[in-house]
Amino acid sequence: MTTEITLTPAEKLWAIECIKNTFAERLRCMDCKEWEIYPTLHTDDVVSETWGGLPANKQPVSDGVSNRVVGPGPLTAAIKRLLDGHIPITSVHHGHTPQIELTSNTTARGIWAMEDHLWWTNGDHEEHLHGYGHYHEEYRLVGDKWLISYRTLVRLREDKTPDFFNLIGKL
Amino acid sequence: MTTEITLTPAEKLWAIECIKNTFAERLRCMDCKEWEIYPTLHTDDVVSETWGGLPANKQPVSDGVSNRVVGPGPLTAAIKRLLDGHIPITSVHHGHTPQIELTSNTTARGIWAMEDHLWWTNGDHEEHLHGYGHYHEEYRLVGDKWLISYRTLVRLREDKTPDFFNLIGKL
Amino acid sequence: MTTEITLTPAEKLWAIECIKNTFAERLRCMDCKEWEIYPTLHTDDVVSETWGGLPANKQPVSDGVSNRVVGPGPLTAAIKRLLDGHIPITSVHHGHTPQIELTSNTTARGIWAMEDHLWWTNGDHEEHLHGYGHYHEEYRLVGDKWLISYRTLVRLREDKTPDFFNLIGKL
Repeated sequence: MTTEITLTPAEKLWAIECIKNTFAERLRCMDCKEWEIYPTLHTDDVVSETWGGLPANKQPVSDGVSNRVVGPGPLTAAIKRLLDGHIPITSVHHGHTPQIELTSNTTARGIWAMEDHLWWTNGDHEEHLHGYGHYHEEYRLVGDKWLISYRTLVRLREDKTPDFFNLIGKL
Repeated sequence: MTTEITLTPAEKLWAIECIKNTFAERLRCMDCKEWEIYPTLHTDDVVSETWGGLPANKQPVSDGVSNRVVGPGPLTAAIKRLLDGHIPITSVHHGHTPQIELTSNTTARGIWAMEDHLWWTNGDHEEHLHGYGHYHEEYRLVGDKWLISYRTLVRLREDKTPDFFNLIGKL
Repeated sequence: MTTEITLTPAEKLWAIECIKNTFAERLRCMDCKEWEIYPTLHTDDVVSETWGGLPANKQPVSDGVSNRVVGPGPLTAAIKRLLDGHIPITSVHHGHTPQIELTSNTTARGIWAMEDHLWWTNGDHEEHLHGYGHYHEEYRLVGDKWLISYRTLVRLREDKTPDFFNLIGKL
């Protein structure tokens, strides 16, 4: 549902630029492993449904039903456990060509093309996942900062070494 | 030729954001195979000259002379035939760092860095093309929507499996 | 240090869009080898510290101490010597999800995710480098044009063929 937007064109553009910055900061602090920043980019009630790419029953954190992770604390813990636990993972997440649409003065949704890489060392060889898809997100203005309130990931393609997801059993 | 631009800075920025959205939507609906959207992003007289990367005489659609495809219907048909015919192709197109320049209140041109992947299954193995280059486009405001009126693609590099273009004979 | 910013929201957004354009133009003219444009995108006192990814003592240009290159002329010469000398290199540089922050009416800083590819032919085979990281840059308004005044590159990952850096000895 879209409610009336009373912002000027410049205010709308500023909101969109702020949203792009929040998105950029999330990817950057995930790949740079700056976990103290990660939760501050999400609303208190953030819902992430991006774990669907994992094999059945291998979700590092879920509610046991739906691959949903709720709240900035659990979300940060889940991603930190995957990327920065006792198996070090190098990750690269890139986001492209955002389509950001304000749905009110204080809410928005966005679609981003994405590409990601994950690498980890499995004994004498390296495991690698290389994926492509789109993030579908929602945003909310909290105070003077645009935060991410929802995220899902729809994948177009995922290439990986055969034992890549052995990782999950080692976390 | 550049005619006088009387838009305010905010109006110019809004036009540029709208053009970026139209570009984003085109790539997204191409890779997600939403063919009903594809033609609506182009002007009635759109000209696409992006088929030059194909080997001689292997263009799926051309005017027999110049690799040009004219009009949103023929353009959609040509791309749908290539990507979503009886040989299923998974595609990923990413666009980067747009340089959008208004040439009048209602026309613009833009350059985008691009990277694309195409995959198809050829019997017992997979064929893959991975390309890099720049899109050079033109845009026109039609009603309240910025549409693509011209596109060419200048490639920097193209890596592909030896039989990738056997695809064309199978379309 | 951040000094007072008196620009309107539209003026700030226009500055940010101009900075994104300058960044885009630098990557494009590097990969398209338009060396006459390259120096015009940098301030007279530009400092580049992006050579740290090279093996020790293999910097094509440095001050012998710190991998710094100072000034648009020496910077263009260093990059041209690497990418467009008598060993032809095909390069692709992509920049993503800019976070641009104005630090005064005429200065700014920015972080960009990046990915680069370099290829060259070494006798009977091809050498390839594929890297990932973040550019950290600074910008300054000179006349009516935003120019790059500082750049460093922090890499997340670099994959390369074993003899890739034999290139340096051949320059």
